[in-house]
Amino acid sequence: MDHGVADLPSGPLDAYRRKASFNWKEMVCFLDGEEIHQFKQHVFKTLENDPLFARQPGEDVSVERKRELNFLRVKQLFRYDFMTKEKLMADPWKAMILDDCLGMYDWSMVAKFFLNTGMFAGTVANSGSSRHRKYVEGIEDMTLFGCFALTELSHGSNTRAMRTTATYDPSTKEFLINSPDFEAAKFWVGNLGKTATHAVVFAQLHTPDHVCHGLHSFIVPVRDPKTLLALPGVLVGDMGKKLGQNGLDNGFVMFHNVRIPQENLLNKTGDVTPDGRYVTPFTDPNKRFGASLGALSGGRIYISRMSLMNLKLALTVAIRFSATRRQFGPKDTEEIPVLEYQLQQWRLIPYLAAAYALEHFTKTIAMNFGEFKIGQMMKENSHRQAEMGREIHAIGCCSKPLGSWIAQRGIQECREACGGHGYLAMNRLGDLRDDNDPNCTYEGDNNVLLQQTSTYLLSLFHAKLHDGVRIQSPFHTVDFLDDFQTILKSQFTARTVEECMDPEVPKAAYKWLVCFLLEESQKRLEQEKASCRNDFDARNNSQVYYCRSLAITYSEHNCLQRFHELVTERDTPAGLRPVLRKLCALYGLWSLSSHMATLYQGSYMSGRKPVELVQKAILTLCSQLKDDAVALVDVFAPTDFILNSPIGCADGELYKNLWSAVLQGNQVLERPSWWKEFCSEKPVIGSLQSKL
Amino acid sequence: MDHGVADLPSGPLDAYRRKASFNWKEMVCFLDGEEIHQFKQHVFKTLENDPLFARQPGEDVSVERKRELNFLRVKQLFRYDFMTKEKLMADPWKAMILDDCLGMYDWSMVAKFFLNTGMFAGTVANSGSSRHRKYVEGIEDMTLFGCFALTELSHGSNTRAMRTTATYDPSTKEFLINSPDFEAAKFWVGNLGKTATHAVVFAQLHTPDHVCHGLHSFIVPVRDPKTLLALPGVLVGDMGKKLGQNGLDNGFVMFHNVRIPQENLLNKTGDVTPDGRYVTPFTDPNKRFGASLGALSGGRIYISRMSLMNLKLALTVAIRFSATRRQFGPKDTEEIPVLEYQLQQWRLIPYLAAAYALEHFTKTIAMNFGEFKIGQMMKENSHRQAEMGREIHAIGCCSKPLGSWIAQRGIQECREACGGHGYLAMNRLGDLRDDNDPNCTYEGDNNVLLQQTSTYLLSLFHAKLHDGVRIQSPFHTVDFLDDFQTILKSQFTARTVEECMDPEVPKAAYKWLVCFLLEESQKRLEQEKASCRNDFDARNNSQVYYCRSLAITYSEHNCLQRFHELVTERDTPAGLRPVLRKLCALYGLWSLSSHMATLYQGSYMSGRKPVELVQKAILTLCSQLKDDAVALVDVFAPTDFILNSPIGCADGELYKNLWSAVLQGNQVLERPSWWKEFCSEKPVIGSLQSKL
Repeated sequence: MDHGVADLPSGPLDAYRRKASFNWKEMVCFLDGEEIHQFKQHVFKTLENDPLFARQPGEDVSVERKRELNFLRVKQLFRYDFMTKEKLMADPWKAMILDDCLGMYDWSMVAKFFLNTGMFAGTVANSGSSRHRKYVEGIEDMTLFGCFALTELSHGSNTRAMRTTATYDPSTKEFLINSPDFEAAKFWVGNLGKTATHAVVFAQLHTPDHVCHGLHSFIVPVRDPKTLLALPGVLVGDMGKKLGQNGLDNGFVMFHNVRIPQENLLNKTGDVTPDGRYVTPFTDPNKRFGASLGALSGGRIYISRMSLMNLKLALTVAIRFSATRRQFGPKDTEEIPVLEYQLQQWRLIPYLAAAYALEHFTKTIAMNFGEFKIGQMMKENSHRQAEMGREIHAIGCCSKPLGSWIAQRGIQECREACGGHGYLAMNRLGDLRDDNDPNCTYEGDNNVLLQQTSTYLLSLFHAKLHDGVRIQSPFHTVDFLDDFQTILKSQFTARTVEECMDPEVPKAAYKWLVCFLLEESQKRLEQEKASCRNDFDARNNSQVYYCRSLAITYSEHNCLQRFHELVTERDTPAGLRPVLRKLCALYGLWSLSSHMATLYQGSYMSGRKPVELVQKAILTLCSQLKDDAVALVDVFAPTDFILNSPIGCADGELYKNLWSAVLQGNQVLERPSWWKEFCSEKPVIGSLQSKL
Repeated sequence: MDHGVADLPSGPLDAYRRKASFNWKEMVCFLDGEEIHQFKQHVFKTLENDPLFARQPGEDVSVERKRELNFLRVKQLFRYDFMTKEKLMADPWKAMILDDCLGMYDWSMVAKFFLNTGMFAGTVANSGSSRHRKYVEGIEDMTLFGCFALTELSHGSNTRAMRTTATYDPSTKEFLINSPDFEAAKFWVGNLGKTATHAVVFAQLHTPDHVCHGLHSFIVPVRDPKTLLALPGVLVGDMGKKLGQNGLDNGFVMFHNVRIPQENLLNKTGDVTPDGRYVTPFTDPNKRFGASLGALSGGRIYISRMSLMNLKLALTVAIRFSATRRQFGPKDTEEIPVLEYQLQQWRLIPYLAAAYALEHFTKTIAMNFGEFKIGQMMKENSHRQAEMGREIHAIGCCSKPLGSWIAQRGIQECREACGGHGYLAMNRLGDLRDDNDPNCTYEGDNNVLLQQTSTYLLSLFHAKLHDGVRIQSPFHTVDFLDDFQTILKSQFTARTVEECMDPEVPKAAYKWLVCFLLEESQKRLEQEKASCRNDFDARNNSQVYYCRSLAITYSEHNCLQRFHELVTERDTPAGLRPVLRKLCALYGLWSLSSHMATLYQGSYMSGRKPVELVQKAILTLCSQLKDDAVALVDVFAPTDFILNSPIGCADGELYKNLWSAVLQGNQVLERPSWWKEFCSEKPVIGSLQSKL
């Protein structure tokens, strides 16, 4: 049975592929299903067949040209229309897969597309009303191009502190949009640098009675769609080069009394009558604020998925390289693949296990989010819907740190594990690191977001302790905490390496860890409150080693728990179960190993044995998985065209591919254009020397 | 007293500067001394005053242009001749400071200069004889440009496996240099891409009797110095873009029967007579090999110093940013600098402590190395000289991993700690990360190098156990190991946070750690030898958690120990002692905290208290040092011109500097050149859609 999955080219990787303990095509069908697999291949092939998407490994492209190419490619995506709006609504999972595929090619392209259609048009559709339909239609046929302008030069995390103003003038029925000074310039706005014609601008709404009604969003035209020239009063420009994702033109804008019609206020959460009275369906200004920022909360889950895609790409490169790069050996005459070294296995294979864990984690939390969204669209107003909102917010806020940090560290490890060749731009590990990096920052700094998760957990714990409320949640990620007293009495019980390789072992340890850190964090917070001047300081002084660790271990437990469910589910094919079980155990134990001090601190572990067992189990699992490693990356590797890394090609012809790519680079064999600078005007040594 | 150190510009950083517990100028004078400080300022100002060295924050420079600029700047360095050859010999420490200064500007420039004068000319001078003088002179007046060609496409770490051949032809008294195939092409050779006219090439020497005498080095002309065109038989080219250090042109070369005269063999370790007989002063071929690669061993110590410079630059940016960036606060009306947050302190200040520890560590090991070198030049043949060689090799092999990894992680943390603004290329954190990255790889992959260190320690331990040889070494870094039995009986004794903040606490813990890991590694190695087929596997299977950790803790202990000596030295000014002591304790405890599991495993720690004390001590020290942090970076920050990061300027005018740099970027306010692509040929949605 070939499952409709095409064979990979034969070559030096065959040796490992033959040794795999499972059928990689069966794994593709199990994880993706045939339809999704075919869809991925279709997207990959479409890009490969279109010369507009052609690229050369390691080519040196200017920022200006990157932005142009990215714009042209986004324009072409309108023509390909891989998912019509109807299909997208009907199958949001497939829409996510589309982004996965396009992102593996270039995240700048996904970002440019999404900021326009999702963040601009989506926000207009969700936060506006029928009077704003024309803007959504303008995006759909690309007569307009949009962006989302929230953060300012001097404010990012503290969104409430934005200082751009929108003052209503009843005499002309317009808002005046103003930036009080350059520190309040909108900054970091994707698409605004070169392309956006319209922006959703967040500004403090002032009515003629001199009352400020807080942050609201407005549609503000910034450039003439016929000329792309800035409109009067709008100082708009490009922020310049970033560490990565340079296809995306991030920009800034300052407004000098820019007049927009009253109807450009996105009026879902509040409106202004023609004569200047403020009206709102919300009574609580905090709720209003929450709702106006609601559009932001979906992105974090997808960012954990983006990070995973980057990790998959890096692992594909590093594992295939390690399976074909030979260095040293037991005899002088024969060298062995570096993947055979325990050290190389230990550096890479735990990240491979993490990639499998994150695959299932991001998929299932996306489904949880989908369930929540459906309720929202149905205007579900139940307690359960509200609880789903709180839980999905807590999950999203820790899934992004979990995914983006594992990917960032994993890509760095892959870079180093490929040695010098990993440092060559054409092999893409640098771009992956650079493109993944902002995942740690945008949509909320990782460390700041973790506070949201711990706050959620602590509030549940508080209700339990003070009001006896049972700890439970719609997606059950916190249910075990209700048993915290029993769990805190548990101890590490594995006695042999074999026993320790059971995923139940790290799972049980994580349950204890989360309960322990929950109780400790709560105590710490109480102590700090008792000794601090205010709650603000108490909260800040309870982050390191307490609330922060709590949120991290909660996310790791959740990820492990979901992966373990997959391993033990009835429908999981018997032929895949053993390898998935090993990956699950390895992910769990490896993640756990950074919390050993806490496990000893709270006496969950004691004596010499536990550390040794965990370490031996990790090394044993790495060694058992090394023959599966190539097949495991084959499962998630995109086509060579998309991967775009000569040392990571599916045929495993490491040196042939690398050498070929090097020789075809730009002006490789030519002497430099500045050769005369070497040959003439030889320097007179010390001629410019000056005395100190 | 102004110590000859100029004031820094007044601005928003004044508040922190006023709160500092010490006089930063006194610290400059203590660490550098006035002469070195003046010399640094002289180098910085010279570059700043020369338009050839001008640059604009965040500018987008093509790889081709970077290589040209770097060449021109290196040429200019010949004219400035900051250190004449004589001065350089007389004051090697000042020569290192010169590299620090130039490297803070751009490591590509230092690399290009050093590979030519140090690696090419230095190797020729050290490995050749009087017949090679003309090549050294050619470098000195830049009639020639050199490179060092060792690694090949398919071999890096395993230097013995190089396959380039040099076959002697007695009929013409020439060597024929050949690359058997492209996998044996010399690869990664700095300066070879565009500029080198001559290469020191490592090749297997074959005599007419078909005997291979192993790797030797040869001077091979590769380009015509009058035209920079490649010579016949030489396929030489540029490897293309790297992740960083793109001013340096790394290249490759393949030789097709290239003939060079017999005298181009660098003949210190072996020569060929005109009739083709091989003669050598060495009897042991292993010793010969060691000697011919001897030229490589110095670099590692300097790489740890390079890494430190990168860390200092990143910390200057991140700490000054954190002291001026305000976000949230106890009241809605007032925001506080992010440096006031415990979390931000914990993310950055331990790296600041590490920078101070590494400053003294790299300085003193460079002095140890100097002592060794003097012995070598004096042709000292004593046992002590040989022992110095072994010890300095062990130190160098772990100092590079220690320095490069702390810097790599520290720069990443600085990037994230600066949020979005840290992701803007103009703020330089990306370049620092990219330029630091290869420090983990060249001159030996970090993980591979650590094996050299652990092998050294294990051999001393073996001699002690089996032959009762006292463990001691010329630089005393291992002397404490002789007491391992007593040390292994010691335990963690601190009872209060106050006690735990004494540097003696982490120092004692590290002594125990190194002894514990030494004994465990030795046991593990014995077990593996008993169960493995061969020593090769036994060694490889004892790395993770054993030998690798041993080498890391030995380096950390050594770094901590030296720093503690500085703190307690009689000459250390009383006014600086308290802050240095805090930095020392913080560095020690923070490094130690990643080994807590081992400390519990071996029962050095037990129960709840130790973890809590260490954590509290770390947080307390961070909080005590936060008011000193700005002054501590002022001590090592270069001038604003060299730092080249708007958010890190000495005046602390974060937003003014950033805004000004953004607005002066290239075509910032212009519409894009491709604006018509937006305005015409609007895409027909779905026009390219195809059915699956």
